[in-house]
Amino acid sequence: MSIAVAVLGATGYTGAELIRLLDAHPEFHIQHLAAHSQAGKRVSEVLPSIASQSANIILAKADDAIPSDVELVFTALPHAAAAKSVKKVLDSGKRVVDLSADFRHPNLNNYADAYGLAHPFPALLEQAVYGLSEHARSSIINASLVANPGCYPTSVLLPLIPLLQHKVIQSSSIIIDAKSGASGAGRAAKTGLLYCEINEGLSAYGLPKHRHAWEMEEWASFYGKQEVSVRFVPHIIPMSRGMLSTIHLTGQHSHQWHGILNAQYQHDAFVRILPEGQLPSTSNVKGSNRCDIGLSILSETEAVVVSCLDNLLKGASGQAIQNANIMFGLDETLGLAINASWP
Amino acid sequence: MSIAVAVLGATGYTGAELIRLLDAHPEFHIQHLAAHSQAGKRVSEVLPSIASQSANIILAKADDAIPSDVELVFTALPHAAAAKSVKKVLDSGKRVVDLSADFRHPNLNNYADAYGLAHPFPALLEQAVYGLSEHARSSIINASLVANPGCYPTSVLLPLIPLLQHKVIQSSSIIIDAKSGASGAGRAAKTGLLYCEINEGLSAYGLPKHRHAWEMEEWASFYGKQEVSVRFVPHIIPMSRGMLSTIHLTGQHSHQWHGILNAQYQHDAFVRILPEGQLPSTSNVKGSNRCDIGLSILSETEAVVVSCLDNLLKGASGQAIQNANIMFGLDETLGLAINASWP
Amino acid sequence: MSIAVAVLGATGYTGAELIRLLDAHPEFHIQHLAAHSQAGKRVSEVLPSIASQSANIILAKADDAIPSDVELVFTALPHAAAAKSVKKVLDSGKRVVDLSADFRHPNLNNYADAYGLAHPFPALLEQAVYGLSEHARSSIINASLVANPGCYPTSVLLPLIPLLQHKVIQSSSIIIDAKSGASGAGRAAKTGLLYCEINEGLSAYGLPKHRHAWEMEEWASFYGKQEVSVRFVPHIIPMSRGMLSTIHLTGQHSHQWHGILNAQYQHDAFVRILPEGQLPSTSNVKGSNRCDIGLSILSETEAVVVSCLDNLLKGASGQAIQNANIMFGLDETLGLAINASWP
Amino acid sequence: MSIAVAVLGATGYTGAELIRLLDAHPEFHIQHLAAHSQAGKRVSEVLPSIASQSANIILAKADDAIPSDVELVFTALPHAAAAKSVKKVLDSGKRVVDLSADFRHPNLNNYADAYGLAHPFPALLEQAVYGLSEHARSSIINASLVANPGCYPTSVLLPLIPLLQHKVIQSSSIIIDAKSGASGAGRAAKTGLLYCEINEGLSAYGLPKHRHAWEMEEWASFYGKQEVSVRFVPHIIPMSRGMLSTIHLTGQHSHQWHGILNAQYQHDAFVRILPEGQLPSTSNVKGSNRCDIGLSILSETEAVVVSCLDNLLKGASGQAIQNANIMFGLDETLGLAINASWP
Repeated sequence: MSIAVAVLGATGYTGAELIRLLDAHPEFHIQHLAAHSQAGKRVSEVLPSIASQSANIILAKADDAIPSDVELVFTALPHAAAAKSVKKVLDSGKRVVDLSADFRHPNLNNYADAYGLAHPFPALLEQAVYGLSEHARSSIINASLVANPGCYPTSVLLPLIPLLQHKVIQSSSIIIDAKSGASGAGRAAKTGLLYCEINEGLSAYGLPKHRHAWEMEEWASFYGKQEVSVRFVPHIIPMSRGMLSTIHLTGQHSHQWHGILNAQYQHDAFVRILPEGQLPSTSNVKGSNRCDIGLSILSETEAVVVSCLDNLLKGASGQAIQNANIMFGLDETLGLAINASWP
Repeated sequence: MSIAVAVLGATGYTGAELIRLLDAHPEFHIQHLAAHSQAGKRVSEVLPSIASQSANIILAKADDAIPSDVELVFTALPHAAAAKSVKKVLDSGKRVVDLSADFRHPNLNNYADAYGLAHPFPALLEQAVYGLSEHARSSIINASLVANPGCYPTSVLLPLIPLLQHKVIQSSSIIIDAKSGASGAGRAAKTGLLYCEINEGLSAYGLPKHRHAWEMEEWASFYGKQEVSVRFVPHIIPMSRGMLSTIHLTGQHSHQWHGILNAQYQHDAFVRILPEGQLPSTSNVKGSNRCDIGLSILSETEAVVVSCLDNLLKGASGQAIQNANIMFGLDETLGLAINASWP
Repeated sequence: MSIAVAVLGATGYTGAELIRLLDAHPEFHIQHLAAHSQAGKRVSEVLPSIASQSANIILAKADDAIPSDVELVFTALPHAAAAKSVKKVLDSGKRVVDLSADFRHPNLNNYADAYGLAHPFPALLEQAVYGLSEHARSSIINASLVANPGCYPTSVLLPLIPLLQHKVIQSSSIIIDAKSGASGAGRAAKTGLLYCEINEGLSAYGLPKHRHAWEMEEWASFYGKQEVSVRFVPHIIPMSRGMLSTIHLTGQHSHQWHGILNAQYQHDAFVRILPEGQLPSTSNVKGSNRCDIGLSILSETEAVVVSCLDNLLKGASGQAIQNANIMFGLDETLGLAINASWP
Repeated sequence: MSIAVAVLGATGYTGAELIRLLDAHPEFHIQHLAAHSQAGKRVSEVLPSIASQSANIILAKADDAIPSDVELVFTALPHAAAAKSVKKVLDSGKRVVDLSADFRHPNLNNYADAYGLAHPFPALLEQAVYGLSEHARSSIINASLVANPGCYPTSVLLPLIPLLQHKVIQSSSIIIDAKSGASGAGRAAKTGLLYCEINEGLSAYGLPKHRHAWEMEEWASFYGKQEVSVRFVPHIIPMSRGMLSTIHLTGQHSHQWHGILNAQYQHDAFVRILPEGQLPSTSNVKGSNRCDIGLSILSETEAVVVSCLDNLLKGASGQAIQNANIMFGLDETLGLAINASWP
């Protein structure tokens, strides 16, 4: 008995990844796809990578009615636009996994600071669950609205949370130097995203404070039960997929940190703690829903944590499916790869 | 009831791809992995991309005994070495899918010309089936030994065979200009394969006659029931996966060609004929087991066919799994992606 | 005594390359730069790669008056727009090197067929010289207007012309399979040119007849003194710079062809004929103004010629400087690299 | 009157870059090239990118006598091997620019810690000058032996030195998160450097303490006149050339830092301080000898400095030429590009 789902914002990179995954999922099937600017076209015209059952679906407009038998809607829309759609979908009694930032900030000031606008539907925030799957399963299972975490925050929070909870690291001015492949910047036709502008180049961006820094601080503080502040510098890298966060930590008893991470995630299929001293590569998570975490100890008080994921999978659409699995009481790993597609 | 399989040559690019696919396959499970130079190590040490059940297998030596409950062996070894292993495996009563070139040439002269050595076990050739899945299903199902086709030949034979069979194209001096990502060149540590030597560069190689030209000619002639000769120029491209063959054709009634291709492959999940005039991209097959084929008509007597596949999937390990599915009476698409992993 | 020059269309890829080269040129200096959409900005704001004398120039509008002491104007504008600017510049008594296609076609029908519009100033075509430097020096030196050749035609005409002139190759249906890096597609903000759409992908385009096919046919026929027709299939490759044309030839006395090419270009600094059987790579011409040509003989009547250049140098801005050197009686190699920037 | 020079270790990436630059240099000319493993071959056979005067030089063995009229020798050899060659060359009365690490450490303990061996010729260290050009011109001009700085140290020391000298930044645990293109890892045939292992991947390496960390600490301490310690994490990036160091700083009066950097380098052709808040990209220095430095202020006590260079130019062979220019009293910029080769 298959569960009918819809995707709004189907033709961006995260939307396309959702279609790819859902068409191969044993329990979900796509009933409705919307993409405003491409409405009326067949999916395969806009996304020639799709050749399975969804290929022949005609793309609906953003505002078209969603069939009544759809139980779950994925919204892969820009912030603010997403909130509007989410409101309508919830009102119609369906459940939602929202991939935008609109419901990630219970703290309205953080949302306003990060996104430069007042939240359009603050009342909805009460029912939103921040879907960092490994840390929120019991809330996700009953949620009507899951706010899917950002890619950078996922890569950072997974290693930080257990270390903060064990109070072995300093929580002020944690330095996070992160690197992302270009698909993280989305599919808008901008000069700065052209092949020749990204290829053979490397740059930092988003300073002095990138939007995801607020998200990291808010949820690291929440889970760590202490005020956390980060100095976060993201970079764009000439590759399509992949994200790596290098986290420069100071604290105490650094020889215990590896054990803390190991104990936290030993039963989680999608988080792998590498042997101490071994560092992960984005190559080894690309195409999978995994986050690989490595730790190198510099001294009793200093260590470097490196965390890798595929920004379109564990950093977006993959974690969205993982959350959907949890919401519907399915095995969390259904339809998601554990092995990376390498090389 | 799961079928136990083994992979010999597990740590090259095609071996790693086999492990990735088999660990997610619903009917096969890996029982034995061998990789001579890495024997004794855990899979995850050598292939950190693997994190599922096979990650903890200890790699055997090439000559170690294969457990008796293994029913099927994939050999992903260099030519000549492969033949020796295949002989032993067949003698022990197991079935084999061989990814090398050793059993692709019923014509022993072609093998000798292409590989520069006399075939070590010519007697075995009688039981070998050339595993171009879409054209050999009825032979594959009973085969003890499937010779998995080369990547270039697969991309070329799929469009050529129906056109030859309908006698609408000239069969002499067919010009094939092909382009392959670097993974097609294998994982040996050679200066010419270093990142900085391949990146931002482009070159032809393999002239005057690349080994795969003999394979194309032999099987195009066999299926086309006429003497076929090709002028084949391969190129290496700065990307990891993907292969594109541009086939410059001369013949008659070119307006019929698209219909011929369409009719041939309309029921095949892994071959997609694009609308006439539309050209495929390797991006849209990467990570899938598909071959996409496009046709552009230049005149009543001339057309260009462009054929794309992922050289590690439909060009190697994917087609090997497809053949294994057929051998064991399973749905041919089991464990193989139809949608590409894009971007 | 330095010669003052101007560049119109300064902020595209070919414009930027002209600035880079001219700022390091011992005899030319930039006096005026125009770029309509960026007018009013400093060069270094729009092109941070420029840090030498031109960095502080304020970009003019396309229609702004060009200072009277400017003797030579490079027009790096889209076709049709270029013709209009060229007309004005010539009327003001300055000389022009035009990098667009507007003055490459003495045959007005070819221009109309290739570009889909009637030529706006056919009278000017009489004074235009097609600037394939190695074959037109004596005309270039006195020209008021040099039509700089297209990138694909340059890579193809250099090897074809001497072979045609010696009447050793067939001139009908010459098959040219060409591959270009993404900078050849220009700097317009289009979805299809985004990093993630080009990277790890490969596709053919421009069928059934790409604009440059007319240019090749027109000039191969002119220099070869016979009717030449080509079947030309270009491809876009995931790299920034570089172009490779694989030319599949049929003819007679193929053992003479290498000697013909060698004899033709032995005194040309920017054309290198590789030893017979050795094939060129775009890596070895990137950043230089060279065209490298290799020949592999398949039989007495068949051979493959491979020709490589940097599409922004010998394929555009480099050849433009070479032509400007010739126009002003300077050493043809001034300001142009002979060695490639490798890796 | 041209100065004769030699290059030992001519066929690695830094050696090839020296040849490219020297062949276009107006005052130096190459008299002798040695490359042990390739001795006896013509340069163009081993480095097809070279087509100018050096292309026909026959490569000598490492130990072959260097012609007596050679005045300057560049040694581009692995550490330890370099020291041996430098000793011989100095004994013969020639001057040397050594690109290895062998003479970068006046502190012998640092050398031993970083390179794991005792220095073979400690006596020579007295005459060695650390060639960070912008800070050592008056010593370089008379030096017989210039130790050319490492790529990472150059990118880090240029911004750090003035800030340390003005005592506005904390000197302990400065966090440096650096990223390098693959050419920085050299040209040895190792599996880990293959195209498919680097492409579409990203990883940190060299922890807990990379060799260049000692070099940074030693010279930052020397020039800053205080004990400096760094936490240095390098990463390898899928691009051929380019290096970016993100330096996370804490201190005081951060609003003064931009002015300090500006004042220091305003007359240096090869160091560009970007407007405050603007961040550099390696794309804009590739192919040039420049280091671009950007500064983003986070608070009165915190800022991020980002520093970019081309690792084969300002990070190696370009700075070596700059030092050679200084040694022979030439204009420091001779033969070196100021504009980047973009895209």
